[in-house]
Amino acid sequence: MGVLQFEVTATDTETAARTGRLTLRSGTVQTPLFMPVGSRGTVRGLTPPQLRECGARMLLANAYHLALRPGAEQVAALGGLGAFMAWEGPTLTDSGGYQVFSLAEHREITEDGVSFRSPVDGTELFLGPAECMRIQNMLGADVAMVLDQCPPYPCERPDVETAVERTLRWSAACRQHHARRDQALFGIVQGGVYEKLRERSARATVKMGFDGYAIGGVSVGESEELRRGAVRATAPLLPEGRPRYLMGVGFPLDVVRAIGEGMDMFDCVAPTRMGRNATAFTPDGRVRLRNSACGRDEGPVQHGCGCLCCRLYSRAYLNHLFRCGEMLGPILLSIHNLAFYNSLMSRARRAVAEGRYAGFRDRFVERYLEGETTT
Amino acid sequence: MGVLQFEVTATDTETAARTGRLTLRSGTVQTPLFMPVGSRGTVRGLTPPQLRECGARMLLANAYHLALRPGAEQVAALGGLGAFMAWEGPTLTDSGGYQVFSLAEHREITEDGVSFRSPVDGTELFLGPAECMRIQNMLGADVAMVLDQCPPYPCERPDVETAVERTLRWSAACRQHHARRDQALFGIVQGGVYEKLRERSARATVKMGFDGYAIGGVSVGESEELRRGAVRATAPLLPEGRPRYLMGVGFPLDVVRAIGEGMDMFDCVAPTRMGRNATAFTPDGRVRLRNSACGRDEGPVQHGCGCLCCRLYSRAYLNHLFRCGEMLGPILLSIHNLAFYNSLMSRARRAVAEGRYAGFRDRFVERYLEGETTT
Repeated sequence: MGVLQFEVTATDTETAARTGRLTLRSGTVQTPLFMPVGSRGTVRGLTPPQLRECGARMLLANAYHLALRPGAEQVAALGGLGAFMAWEGPTLTDSGGYQVFSLAEHREITEDGVSFRSPVDGTELFLGPAECMRIQNMLGADVAMVLDQCPPYPCERPDVETAVERTLRWSAACRQHHARRDQALFGIVQGGVYEKLRERSARATVKMGFDGYAIGGVSVGESEELRRGAVRATAPLLPEGRPRYLMGVGFPLDVVRAIGEGMDMFDCVAPTRMGRNATAFTPDGRVRLRNSACGRDEGPVQHGCGCLCCRLYSRAYLNHLFRCGEMLGPILLSIHNLAFYNSLMSRARRAVAEGRYAGFRDRFVERYLEGETTT
Repeated sequence: MGVLQFEVTATDTETAARTGRLTLRSGTVQTPLFMPVGSRGTVRGLTPPQLRECGARMLLANAYHLALRPGAEQVAALGGLGAFMAWEGPTLTDSGGYQVFSLAEHREITEDGVSFRSPVDGTELFLGPAECMRIQNMLGADVAMVLDQCPPYPCERPDVETAVERTLRWSAACRQHHARRDQALFGIVQGGVYEKLRERSARATVKMGFDGYAIGGVSVGESEELRRGAVRATAPLLPEGRPRYLMGVGFPLDVVRAIGEGMDMFDCVAPTRMGRNATAFTPDGRVRLRNSACGRDEGPVQHGCGCLCCRLYSRAYLNHLFRCGEMLGPILLSIHNLAFYNSLMSRARRAVAEGRYAGFRDRFVERYLEGETTT
């Protein structure tokens, strides 16, 4: 599988953090890397030039959502995911496994796969390993993900074990059905908060051999402590020479800590979804722009931030936009939040390269938590 | 009143069309000019860099809306309208006179002014000539508009006459109360579809002396033919050496025809509002991107258009965005429509400079109408 090249460019001295250079069909990106989420082939409200200006280099889309609308054939006819959404850099499609969790009331799981009924219009969609790979091959992202069964939290151990074993069988089948040599395929480790199941899943997934490895089944309702435990139990079992992707994670503290555990890639709706809901991320924690105090604040969302939102606007203007329900508010805070995440990745990479990641992480966490408690 | 300089740079041979250079406190713009509408201090969904890329050079905001939220004092405290909304070019504020029409159920008119009750939260706002000028002086746009009474259509002649005479008295009072020497003040001609009243209003307004002159009270429900009649009856009575602004107009055909009558400035919500509703303007008429035929159309919204939307995306992608209710759809079509209007202005200026405006206008109208009837 020479479709993906990954080179570890630096390792930290005290933590498991590392930096890397990940080369895919559509380009090379630096890790640790945060991928903005564009499930339906659009990061909500932002144009590709704006995304690039925010520092975004690789986007995530969702095979389930795109298979429903406009259909994978349609995306393929328009030149594939990148051309469809006019994103020139690398892309990754999630398989739809997460929708097993997020659309729990609208699906049925059997050994063959998952039957979804669209909550939008009732359209039925069946995703088994073959369908999942056919769809992702047609979408043509740089990276495809195996079909996994993502159990909720809390979940009894026998049910998680069933999900682990089924995910392993589906992973093997996906490997067989994956038909594009220019598209990388990542395996997904499940196991919930049960460290032994994580270990079983990781070892068996690695044994199959994938271009990269993801930790799935986190950010499904478990505590931060349990999430860290799951990552800590899994990350060391993933091959050093392959990218490690923590799916759906997370908030800034989660990401900063997971980098310390050796994770390389992240995605999360938080920066854009929270931005649309008037919440900004800053080094001093979250700022809620709808708060009336912001209405009189001439300062930017974050002093020293170089994003368009902070360069041009006061908190008072953003407060005005959100009070009026104006679209520009969600857009500007999505821009700021993505710039914040990407700047955090960039500073993390520098800290790793300089062998001082532990101190960087601890200072970041301390300042962030202090800001959160005082605002 | 030396705050505004207007130089007619070319006049057409067959029509009354002209080009001009309008210099205001915040910069110089070329006329004919189209101003995107940002009533609340934001052109919906677009950032200033995007607006500039669309060719926008001067924006319109609304004194009534900004007085309600966030308040004129607040905008002034944040550096005035331009700094507030981070727009570096010229700006113009409408007085709130149009809201006499558009918020007819929420206001009461007396000789002193207009009492509004906000449809949002019931807040009361009184706008008389003094208040209107105090607010616009605080907002600090390059151009302020007098308070006018904008009658609806249809409207009996005696009622329009009352509105004309009251607008004249308010205009004189506004002239007295206008307290900023760095802000231009435009008079507004009313008179509905009654040419004699238009004439009375125009002559009396011009006699008072303003930096520029607007035709108000159009686009309030009258037919295109009556609107053209009102413009034709008024425009020749406005001084040649002053900018002539047709308020709230309009659709592409309205604008192209009004330029031929000698009008210089335009504003309208059509490009942004229609864009948000999935309708694109093109030289061949309107295109409705929600139509299922667009779902299979690999071509751009408009072949040859250089805007971001047309450079990057297929009609099929836009159809997908609108079907999914994704924010990027309204944004991209607002960008295209504003680029279309501004490109139209640019081509109109060239046609005037080359003395071939009549032919340009007639060909534009013919092609547009032909496209409208065949789609």
